[in-house]
Amino acid sequence: MLRPLHLAALLLAAAPTFAQKNPPQPKPVENLTQYAKPIVGTAKMGHTFPGATVPFGMVQLSPDTDTLSYEQDDKYNPDVYKYCAGYQYQDPTIVGFSHTHFSGTGHSDLGDFLLMPTTGPLQLNPGTATQPERGYRSRFNHATEVAEPGYYRVQLEDHDILAELTATNRVGMHQYTFPQATDQAHLILDLMHGIYNYPDKNVWTFVRVENDTLVTGYRQTNGWARTRTVYFAMSFSRPFTNYGSRNYAKKQAYRGFWGKFDQTKNWPDLAGEQLRMYFNFKTTTAGEKLKVKFALSPVSTAGALQNLRAEAPGWDFDRVRAQARQLWQQELSKVVIESPKREDKENFYTALYHAFLSPTTYMDADGQYRGLDQNNHRAEGFTNYTTFSLWDTYRALHPLLNLVQPKRNADMVQSMLAHFEQSAEHMLPVWSHYANENWCMIGYHSVPVIADAVLKGNAPFDANRALDACVTTARTARYDGLGYYMQLGYVPEDKSGSSVSKTLEYAYDDWCIAQMARKLNRPDIYQEFSKRAQNWQNVYDARIGFMRPRLTDGSFRPNFDVLSTHNQGFIEGNAWNYSLYVPQDPAALIAKMGGNRRFTEHLDSLFTMHLPDKFFAETEDITREGIIGNYVHGNEPAHHAAYLYNWTDQPYKTQARVRMILPKMYRPTPDGLGGNDDCGQMSAWYIFSALGFYPVAPGSPEYALGSPAVHGATLSLENGKTFRITVRNQSDKNVYVKEARLNGQKLTRPFLTHEAIMNGGELVFTMAARP
Amino acid sequence: MLRPLHLAALLLAAAPTFAQKNPPQPKPVENLTQYAKPIVGTAKMGHTFPGATVPFGMVQLSPDTDTLSYEQDDKYNPDVYKYCAGYQYQDPTIVGFSHTHFSGTGHSDLGDFLLMPTTGPLQLNPGTATQPERGYRSRFNHATEVAEPGYYRVQLEDHDILAELTATNRVGMHQYTFPQATDQAHLILDLMHGIYNYPDKNVWTFVRVENDTLVTGYRQTNGWARTRTVYFAMSFSRPFTNYGSRNYAKKQAYRGFWGKFDQTKNWPDLAGEQLRMYFNFKTTTAGEKLKVKFALSPVSTAGALQNLRAEAPGWDFDRVRAQARQLWQQELSKVVIESPKREDKENFYTALYHAFLSPTTYMDADGQYRGLDQNNHRAEGFTNYTTFSLWDTYRALHPLLNLVQPKRNADMVQSMLAHFEQSAEHMLPVWSHYANENWCMIGYHSVPVIADAVLKGNAPFDANRALDACVTTARTARYDGLGYYMQLGYVPEDKSGSSVSKTLEYAYDDWCIAQMARKLNRPDIYQEFSKRAQNWQNVYDARIGFMRPRLTDGSFRPNFDVLSTHNQGFIEGNAWNYSLYVPQDPAALIAKMGGNRRFTEHLDSLFTMHLPDKFFAETEDITREGIIGNYVHGNEPAHHAAYLYNWTDQPYKTQARVRMILPKMYRPTPDGLGGNDDCGQMSAWYIFSALGFYPVAPGSPEYALGSPAVHGATLSLENGKTFRITVRNQSDKNVYVKEARLNGQKLTRPFLTHEAIMNGGELVFTMAARP
Repeated sequence: MLRPLHLAALLLAAAPTFAQKNPPQPKPVENLTQYAKPIVGTAKMGHTFPGATVPFGMVQLSPDTDTLSYEQDDKYNPDVYKYCAGYQYQDPTIVGFSHTHFSGTGHSDLGDFLLMPTTGPLQLNPGTATQPERGYRSRFNHATEVAEPGYYRVQLEDHDILAELTATNRVGMHQYTFPQATDQAHLILDLMHGIYNYPDKNVWTFVRVENDTLVTGYRQTNGWARTRTVYFAMSFSRPFTNYGSRNYAKKQAYRGFWGKFDQTKNWPDLAGEQLRMYFNFKTTTAGEKLKVKFALSPVSTAGALQNLRAEAPGWDFDRVRAQARQLWQQELSKVVIESPKREDKENFYTALYHAFLSPTTYMDADGQYRGLDQNNHRAEGFTNYTTFSLWDTYRALHPLLNLVQPKRNADMVQSMLAHFEQSAEHMLPVWSHYANENWCMIGYHSVPVIADAVLKGNAPFDANRALDACVTTARTARYDGLGYYMQLGYVPEDKSGSSVSKTLEYAYDDWCIAQMARKLNRPDIYQEFSKRAQNWQNVYDARIGFMRPRLTDGSFRPNFDVLSTHNQGFIEGNAWNYSLYVPQDPAALIAKMGGNRRFTEHLDSLFTMHLPDKFFAETEDITREGIIGNYVHGNEPAHHAAYLYNWTDQPYKTQARVRMILPKMYRPTPDGLGGNDDCGQMSAWYIFSALGFYPVAPGSPEYALGSPAVHGATLSLENGKTFRITVRNQSDKNVYVKEARLNGQKLTRPFLTHEAIMNGGELVFTMAARP
Repeated sequence: MLRPLHLAALLLAAAPTFAQKNPPQPKPVENLTQYAKPIVGTAKMGHTFPGATVPFGMVQLSPDTDTLSYEQDDKYNPDVYKYCAGYQYQDPTIVGFSHTHFSGTGHSDLGDFLLMPTTGPLQLNPGTATQPERGYRSRFNHATEVAEPGYYRVQLEDHDILAELTATNRVGMHQYTFPQATDQAHLILDLMHGIYNYPDKNVWTFVRVENDTLVTGYRQTNGWARTRTVYFAMSFSRPFTNYGSRNYAKKQAYRGFWGKFDQTKNWPDLAGEQLRMYFNFKTTTAGEKLKVKFALSPVSTAGALQNLRAEAPGWDFDRVRAQARQLWQQELSKVVIESPKREDKENFYTALYHAFLSPTTYMDADGQYRGLDQNNHRAEGFTNYTTFSLWDTYRALHPLLNLVQPKRNADMVQSMLAHFEQSAEHMLPVWSHYANENWCMIGYHSVPVIADAVLKGNAPFDANRALDACVTTARTARYDGLGYYMQLGYVPEDKSGSSVSKTLEYAYDDWCIAQMARKLNRPDIYQEFSKRAQNWQNVYDARIGFMRPRLTDGSFRPNFDVLSTHNQGFIEGNAWNYSLYVPQDPAALIAKMGGNRRFTEHLDSLFTMHLPDKFFAETEDITREGIIGNYVHGNEPAHHAAYLYNWTDQPYKTQARVRMILPKMYRPTPDGLGGNDDCGQMSAWYIFSALGFYPVAPGSPEYALGSPAVHGATLSLENGKTFRITVRNQSDKNVYVKEARLNGQKLTRPFLTHEAIMNGGELVFTMAARP
């Protein structure tokens, strides 16, 4: 025992000598996980979840405070929207802990495999928030709640149980501490539970009690993902004494000769549409723990069991928790910021935390995953990811990952290409999760993600094959007005709704294809898509100075309201916001809109005008605070808007706007997000903007400079280099950049190249109180 | 072209010279497939199907004349029973051709993936038998129908299409000849169709149109198999011009953002509960053909595609048909019989054909199959089979396979052992199909199948592991009264119905375990199960001379009717038949029942007594002709009964009874089977009995001799030896065996050992008109 200690001491003693021969080491990074607050965004519209997960983890294990009580009501409940992430901060009860969650979405799915520990008489119904005592759910108090990266804890008051959660990539680990010795300790496994649930969402569920500490099975659903199956293996730290189940299906599944057995008690082989199970335990002293390891697989229960054994072989909860925290510390350390205010760090690391939740790992430890064709595939040489909220995340999240997580971002591109290979429609993902295309939103925004990777030199895959996939996708005539777009140069509103948004976004995506084609020396494709990239001009109505829907006959649609987002040719944005959407060529847009003065007036008005309440009411997915004037930060189409001043003669206004938006839209409190976090896009906007630059047009090698909110930052890049951001004379009032110097060289334009960052070096901002 | 012909001629010329140096070759076997008539048993209760399959093939592609029209009626239709095999001879219409069928069952499932070619206006509903013009189905006439081993043909009158079917193991091949040039040629793929169907049987279906000649997908059902998925890959010989689908689900599956596309036309990616598809073709001249290859897989569409490519790479329908016929000829040639009457050969080879239909192959060409745990497994060193109708087939079918198909029979045992390994209940199969236990009927009759293989020396597997599986199964207290049986020595009727049948069959199965244990030198197990094998005595009521249900308190149940099969403690048999069920020890039974005279009186009466009509009405699964006196040949419990005279002083009565039963119960006509063929058990009875011996107690090394119906037979055994049965002085009247000589040695007892057959040699019967 002494020898290793002695050796360690020697090594430590030698370290300073060694260090002296090398450049000065960065000082040890403090514990950054203390600043990341998973609880942020869990109130109102943020739609984040407070539970336990590792970065980009398959298991995202979190308390559900409600989803949709279809016990009482068979009909679709519009309140289901509130529960996109399963948790609303103001709710008084917790139903239980389920293993999969989206972060920040505006439509939802998942919530698989809810576990809930209870004491007292067995209850198999969840009960209601107002009458929790009528079911297995429990009241809770935020005072007992701790939500940290990789760890969650809460006291379940009705059962007097301390519940703790942690996770590895594919295994959720539960630790339930029971109060007194009891022979009425239960664990509920609710297979009916789900997020965005409704009576027929469960297509089939299947459970096997393999032995008295191991249960396996799956849940197959028809939801946002049309055909989706998730497999599990659940292991207990102590044997159950007995178990049982109840099938709640109104129309009982065919029973055949199974009817001769009592399957409700201790029967190890269950299947049906609506099942709940219970497992009974006995505790003999106060404070005894039941630990549960719950592994997932997209492939099979055998895969789940392998994941369980590979990632969580033991029962040391604290060790798994420490590992999870260490993984977060490692990822968060990629960007170390300086600020005298704790709140700034909380905002920043909470944003980074949310940005590193998805896309999620979607393959077993051995690389197998279920594909869109429902066959099992093996990811060769990359990690397969899922949950691509691309209409949101192509804007800033993927550029952020391309910068600070290039390996993962390239793997995400490979995952998209695998999707393309498996797609019956021969298309790249639009919004995909769990081996499904769900077709949410518009555009083909895999393209800018791929283009951004290719053009920034992060393409450890066959870039020509990737380009071909983009081109094939962009030529899919049957897709969402695209045939008309190719024929007419715009999507006609009388044929396909949200036609202006589609036209504008297709045009930008086409520009991305052209940029890739240029880099890859594919002139025909470059020509074709450069031409298509101009199509934004076809929906600009110069007479009114706004983008406006056109009809098949070429005329602009009459009866047009530039403030409304409802049925005006746009989606999640009105003409004021969407008319600014030509990220590929702001200069041309400015010229089109009448030049510098007219354009800055439009931009100024956007941020300052009064939006009557009736228009707010029809704006989706955001709180009232998510709007500044008529600028809708809570939705994505205008996320680049504040940076457009950089193309005018008033870039200082970008700086002022950004610094105004940052504290207004992001606060480190449960209600601190002004709209859906959208799988990290809102958070990625914060991160870039707080650092002082933003990717206005992913696929372009340039970032637009803004105004840093940090007092300094160090980016540790995967290529081993360090990029340092130093901010002089920083204060809340000094929002204007007096000067920016890259490696000592003064920047003459408010732009920064990706290459400059990747080469390492230092960017020094000097701030001032006036432009 | 000349050279190969020339070479062939040389080889032919050389053949006689070569032959002279070797023992005399058996004379070439005639085409036996001409005698096997798949149409036999398709009328009334036989429940066989006339379609195309290879021996033990996964694909059993056959016309369905109806199943259950739940278009009109949501309720369970008792007529569904008629359509266990999808086809009833008297029906006037064919709905289409589906790819999976049971042969001869009394409960059913399957009927997956119905294809139907049509002409004229597109119709997606099947229509009804009385109004076929209202749907895609067609009238047909038996005059145009040809059903041969591996081939089926019929003219679809309403569409004027000649339909032909053939198959490889995993691929069904269709050849449709269209009449005139038409641009209204359609192929319907009905995913709603199924056998023993009802509205909620489809759990999910999934289709992808991969390109204009390839379609893949799956059908997942909750039927007799609780959780069952079959995958397909369908390839066309010519591209379709366009295609479409309709979703008939009353409650539409969740549509999400798929709703923005028109999925009914040329949309390649479909999923839902109730789908029908059509593919349109154009023919430009009269007589053009559309060929379809339809491959199945229990694992995945990728597996189906591999099977398609491995087994049916080309488009030569006649070649595939010839291959199928050759496979049948090869299997049928294992027993070559002689008879001057064509009808005898037709009965015999039809029975052999039916005996070689199932268990069916249940793995992909690469050995992968879906297990009971719903994981994919690989069969290592054996072919995995499914469809184990064991309550029926342990009696004669598996002993027949153990004799003439020992390799397959051993593989079937390995398949059962794999089932055991995967079973959540830790039990061997009871009645299993497609990775499911369906729990139909009683007993644990995997045991006699395994015991028969082990005791007859056909156990190329770990026999001790097999014995352990039998023992574990036989000790499963929660199974069907077995706990009481272990505790009380019998199943009490007040706790578990059909208690006498269960007790008697458990006791026989236990004897099988004991025999295995003795052979494997496991004395503890031998003791335990030899004792249990005596339990039949506990349900014998000496006061009335019948087996009779007992109650938990030990008393015999009052109000007992020895003729009724309804609720008297028996299943598919009454006390008269079931009281004879001690196959493991007929001598002890005879003693118990009062000795030789009393026993033969009971047996005589069984065959000669008058059974009032009211008792017939409650006898399941058989026609009136399936009963002789009170002897119910159409059900299985008395299948050994006619042979029991061998244990009395009047074995000649066995000979007379067998020769009476054979022509009464088996005729080579559509209505020629007096009851369900039960996956070949009824046919196996015919084969053994026609050859002159029968396995009264599988697991015993001895067969009981009867009276051969053939004029001679040659069994070509897999060990390379030949066993010859010669029958002298044979005629319809000479039903009595005057003398039987084995290799010249006169047999003194009416029994024959398995070993004697396997050693090769000759058994000579000399027949006489009197005992």
